[in-house]
Amino acid sequence: MSRVKAAVVGLGYWGPNLLRNLHLSTDFELVAACDLDAKRLARASGHYPALRTYTSFDALLAETKPELVAIATPVASHHALAMTALRAGCHVLCEKPLAATSKEASEIVELAGRLDRKVFVDHTFTYTGAVRCIREHYEQGKLGELFYVDSVRINLGLFQPDVSVIWDLAPHDLSILQHVVQQKLVAVQANGTHHNPRQLVDVAYVTLRYESGLTAHLHLSWLSPVKVRRMIFSGTKSSLIYDDLEGAEKIKVYDHGVSFDVSDLETRAQVLVNYRRGDMRAPALDNREALGTEFSEIAASLRGRPATVAMAEDGLQVVRVLEAAEQSIQTGGPWINL
Amino acid sequence: MSRVKAAVVGLGYWGPNLLRNLHLSTDFELVAACDLDAKRLARASGHYPALRTYTSFDALLAETKPELVAIATPVASHHALAMTALRAGCHVLCEKPLAATSKEASEIVELAGRLDRKVFVDHTFTYTGAVRCIREHYEQGKLGELFYVDSVRINLGLFQPDVSVIWDLAPHDLSILQHVVQQKLVAVQANGTHHNPRQLVDVAYVTLRYESGLTAHLHLSWLSPVKVRRMIFSGTKSSLIYDDLEGAEKIKVYDHGVSFDVSDLETRAQVLVNYRRGDMRAPALDNREALGTEFSEIAASLRGRPATVAMAEDGLQVVRVLEAAEQSIQTGGPWINL
Amino acid sequence: MSRVKAAVVGLGYWGPNLLRNLHLSTDFELVAACDLDAKRLARASGHYPALRTYTSFDALLAETKPELVAIATPVASHHALAMTALRAGCHVLCEKPLAATSKEASEIVELAGRLDRKVFVDHTFTYTGAVRCIREHYEQGKLGELFYVDSVRINLGLFQPDVSVIWDLAPHDLSILQHVVQQKLVAVQANGTHHNPRQLVDVAYVTLRYESGLTAHLHLSWLSPVKVRRMIFSGTKSSLIYDDLEGAEKIKVYDHGVSFDVSDLETRAQVLVNYRRGDMRAPALDNREALGTEFSEIAASLRGRPATVAMAEDGLQVVRVLEAAEQSIQTGGPWINL
Amino acid sequence: MSRVKAAVVGLGYWGPNLLRNLHLSTDFELVAACDLDAKRLARASGHYPALRTYTSFDALLAETKPELVAIATPVASHHALAMTALRAGCHVLCEKPLAATSKEASEIVELAGRLDRKVFVDHTFTYTGAVRCIREHYEQGKLGELFYVDSVRINLGLFQPDVSVIWDLAPHDLSILQHVVQQKLVAVQANGTHHNPRQLVDVAYVTLRYESGLTAHLHLSWLSPVKVRRMIFSGTKSSLIYDDLEGAEKIKVYDHGVSFDVSDLETRAQVLVNYRRGDMRAPALDNREALGTEFSEIAASLRGRPATVAMAEDGLQVVRVLEAAEQSIQTGGPWINL
Repeated sequence: MSRVKAAVVGLGYWGPNLLRNLHLSTDFELVAACDLDAKRLARASGHYPALRTYTSFDALLAETKPELVAIATPVASHHALAMTALRAGCHVLCEKPLAATSKEASEIVELAGRLDRKVFVDHTFTYTGAVRCIREHYEQGKLGELFYVDSVRINLGLFQPDVSVIWDLAPHDLSILQHVVQQKLVAVQANGTHHNPRQLVDVAYVTLRYESGLTAHLHLSWLSPVKVRRMIFSGTKSSLIYDDLEGAEKIKVYDHGVSFDVSDLETRAQVLVNYRRGDMRAPALDNREALGTEFSEIAASLRGRPATVAMAEDGLQVVRVLEAAEQSIQTGGPWINL
Repeated sequence: MSRVKAAVVGLGYWGPNLLRNLHLSTDFELVAACDLDAKRLARASGHYPALRTYTSFDALLAETKPELVAIATPVASHHALAMTALRAGCHVLCEKPLAATSKEASEIVELAGRLDRKVFVDHTFTYTGAVRCIREHYEQGKLGELFYVDSVRINLGLFQPDVSVIWDLAPHDLSILQHVVQQKLVAVQANGTHHNPRQLVDVAYVTLRYESGLTAHLHLSWLSPVKVRRMIFSGTKSSLIYDDLEGAEKIKVYDHGVSFDVSDLETRAQVLVNYRRGDMRAPALDNREALGTEFSEIAASLRGRPATVAMAEDGLQVVRVLEAAEQSIQTGGPWINL
Repeated sequence: MSRVKAAVVGLGYWGPNLLRNLHLSTDFELVAACDLDAKRLARASGHYPALRTYTSFDALLAETKPELVAIATPVASHHALAMTALRAGCHVLCEKPLAATSKEASEIVELAGRLDRKVFVDHTFTYTGAVRCIREHYEQGKLGELFYVDSVRINLGLFQPDVSVIWDLAPHDLSILQHVVQQKLVAVQANGTHHNPRQLVDVAYVTLRYESGLTAHLHLSWLSPVKVRRMIFSGTKSSLIYDDLEGAEKIKVYDHGVSFDVSDLETRAQVLVNYRRGDMRAPALDNREALGTEFSEIAASLRGRPATVAMAEDGLQVVRVLEAAEQSIQTGGPWINL
Repeated sequence: MSRVKAAVVGLGYWGPNLLRNLHLSTDFELVAACDLDAKRLARASGHYPALRTYTSFDALLAETKPELVAIATPVASHHALAMTALRAGCHVLCEKPLAATSKEASEIVELAGRLDRKVFVDHTFTYTGAVRCIREHYEQGKLGELFYVDSVRINLGLFQPDVSVIWDLAPHDLSILQHVVQQKLVAVQANGTHHNPRQLVDVAYVTLRYESGLTAHLHLSWLSPVKVRRMIFSGTKSSLIYDDLEGAEKIKVYDHGVSFDVSDLETRAQVLVNYRRGDMRAPALDNREALGTEFSEIAASLRGRPATVAMAEDGLQVVRVLEAAEQSIQTGGPWINL
């Protein structure tokens, strides 16, 4: 099967990783890159001599006709670049969050649908061995029903100049939850405070309610003295802790359970709580770089093979939750229905 | 100075600790104990041959005339026992929570005031070396202003037969916060869910707002596969983490800070965020048993010397917050003003 | 079956645990205790009113005729007490180390054999859920062949007045290794240094060589700033780490392995090393108090049922290794054959 | 001051790091690189277009006349390359270990002395913030006298094809100890075993004795299920633990101490052991890349400014200890005098 011709727009922090993985992939042919900064382009050429570089995105599209455009620019420009690429007939891979507003994100989804192009959103975590392992455990019923999910994603800084801690950190949690839980989110509630002159929220607590009644809770902060990246998936059959800062043992599955014997359901007078405390297991994880897996799946999707990829609709959903969380904070903490 | 004659009511889980510490203390004379269960009384007599034991609280009061009555019975009986003891002219030390409702707690406060008797509430954690160290750091300005406080108090079980996870676990956090922060709480918001046939909340998130705008957040759960007891006090000058499950290093002080340089306060266009990352320090803590310290302070208070003790008003305040948190959960999560 | 009548000699640090467990056991009848200190005896009587107390061991033996005598006195007196008890027709449970010299220990073994009495040695760790779990893994072949064993048993203090760190700490390692490895020890080598005025070795490294060539290594120290209790059992099929200071996860089994493909055994020119990195598992452990298990097994042994107990021969073997290690240190570190 | 013209020989695993740091340094002018593999040279040219590349070391020396030659080839070729470079008038930076035998290493030291050229040895760890912090603590007397040093450097694999675990891992410990302790090593003792067809020692315990009587002990292993990199420096005033796998808190200083009061020095009958348990502190460390610091110091040394660098004599000393440790193992574990 022919290789997918790919171009990258935006060579700041993340773009070079896209270049490197596209270059290494046997599914893609890395043809072009675009950035406003000539020095970045020169550096990229040094690494990939065959790469054609552009400061004009239009010129890139016209001259190299890529099949896939990967967008790694600041979020404010996602919408314009994605719309342009789609209109030029390209498929798109867009950094998260997909767009600066749900309106913009919706327009991307709509245009992609109308033009029959695919828009992937770069929810990188969902391609890691760890998150795939969580999904597998949940799908195969090993966790049973979920009691609740709790995530702590905190550290000292780095304050972003233009977005709150919610837009900075929550997309990771939301995309992981979306990938694992696969349920409709119905409402969001959030409390947040700010302690900086820009008045951007820097500590936030977000509660999510799913269709089934399941809740998930996020603690997001730029003001914690220590870095924590920890999610608890508490289930009826077993529970799982995902600590992304652990080296070899990111996932720990606790074969602990709680069940209830009710002798008189009417009165609930007699309830016997049973605790089962079993083994803990830290499964060996696939350690491949997430971006490598991601590009394999994207290539599969573009070639009509089965793939597990995050699409524009997923990205739109994440943006909607971010907006709802911000809205809840602005209005004093009510539940916002989605 | 004469010893304080003391009696203990309720010899279940906690009562024997009260007996032991009163017996060891040179400030007290342990004279009597009361319980409905004769076997418990017999066991206590085995340990303390001079102890007079009673199944009738009234008889105990009439015959032994204690100066202090320590109440360690289930919460439902606190009010009746405390009121009786006060009317008999005794001072009272009451297990937490002080009473089953804020109305009951208020009555205890009111009667104690009227009869000029003291009612202490057994907020044991506030007498530990760890919590006293936190208070000291905060009072001496070492933490600077607090950005926020976050507490995680979770484990698997033990489900209580008659109270939610909030009444079970939050009194610890609330009494610690009260002791350290020493500010008026103005509002409470909570989300909670239950996954047991009794429909008692078993996972809860409680947000507290103080007069100054400071917020504190509690994660309380009986459905976590691992036990966590961890509080973060994030401050402008340094931050502190209190992990009660650590052996030797319960308190870690991070000499990390964040400050902001604002060049144009009107527009906030230019904000420079400064991070300072310094040493971490785990101070050596006083390892004496908290109850020993507590009884020393109570004796001091009864003898008119300066003491740092939790009084009925503090216990009432905790009960009010517990009620407000429950109310917030019952009514869908609004902020409840205190 | 009738209960075993038991007496305890020595009510210092460990004796009260023996009393309590004998009292709780349905296999034993706790009849008497002996100590030179009348206050200790009075305290014991308070807990166990039926207990007969003695300051004379001979009087105890003559009047209460116990079937089992448990000895928990300082090591210097083990030999005399054990010999007396055996001659009085009693079985004996003796604290570790069994005796102050291997000569004394041999005499105990010899006399017990001649009089057909049993002498158990209190290798408490070998009755814990953790150590039994290690033995099970090894016996069932789950670890494969052992590459080596490494133990670190270090802390700050407590300096013993009369014995070196080897006699203080190594009995734990040696009894655990004996229980798990079940192989003949053939040689011991040790290096040690002292940094205290009594010139007792306070830091020591002991290497043990077994019949099969297997080696085990101990790091023993009273001069470490942190407490560590950690044994590594490295095996061909999987490896196991036993960290006794962990709460819930004392044992971790790593399904990691190393194997070698040799294409030309003569030259060994081509060796392919294969690493297999699999799951880690922390098995749920039996949390019963070790002494409870120990007394059940001792009762079983006395009543002719199958039991896994440490006998005088095991205690003698431990003493021999302690002596050899000390000898190696005194003579500059040579291997001492056993 | 003029820049130092530098060339790199050997572009395998480590060479590219040398290229990158020389390129970034303002003290050096990176002029040339040499490798037998043309592909490696091409890749280096891609990154550093101005770099002149050679497959012949003689041609490099003749045409580019570097002032400093950095050697990052396998150890077997260090001697020949270093001697050639010295004879061509160059200073040399050589990877550790300096040479395959102490005889070779001595010849390098001798030739450098005779030709008045400098030979630096790349003991990278000694330029890290962590190790410099340890040295500082020790030099400033904060640790007091050292009781002992213990190092654990273990992991699963990677088996080296041609050297034992001692030559692979011990150079790190030996160079760190040399840098910190700054004392003459007088004797080495080692035990080691092998479990692989090549019969290279893969588990080793090495004990070092210094002039003052201080001992250090190394546990080196390729057969541990977990990776550990931990050194304990136990001192009279405080103790320090260096855990290189920790993220933010690599160094922990424990303000714990042990001292002895001796009432009768003759008899030592009465010794009072005093334990002081104080704070633990994790100092903030300089996080600069060690190689960057190293090249600054090398440039300083070449320009006659004060510098803390590891020289050929240091490298020779390390090789001597490695040889002695191997010799001790081969001959059954005796102490080998240095």
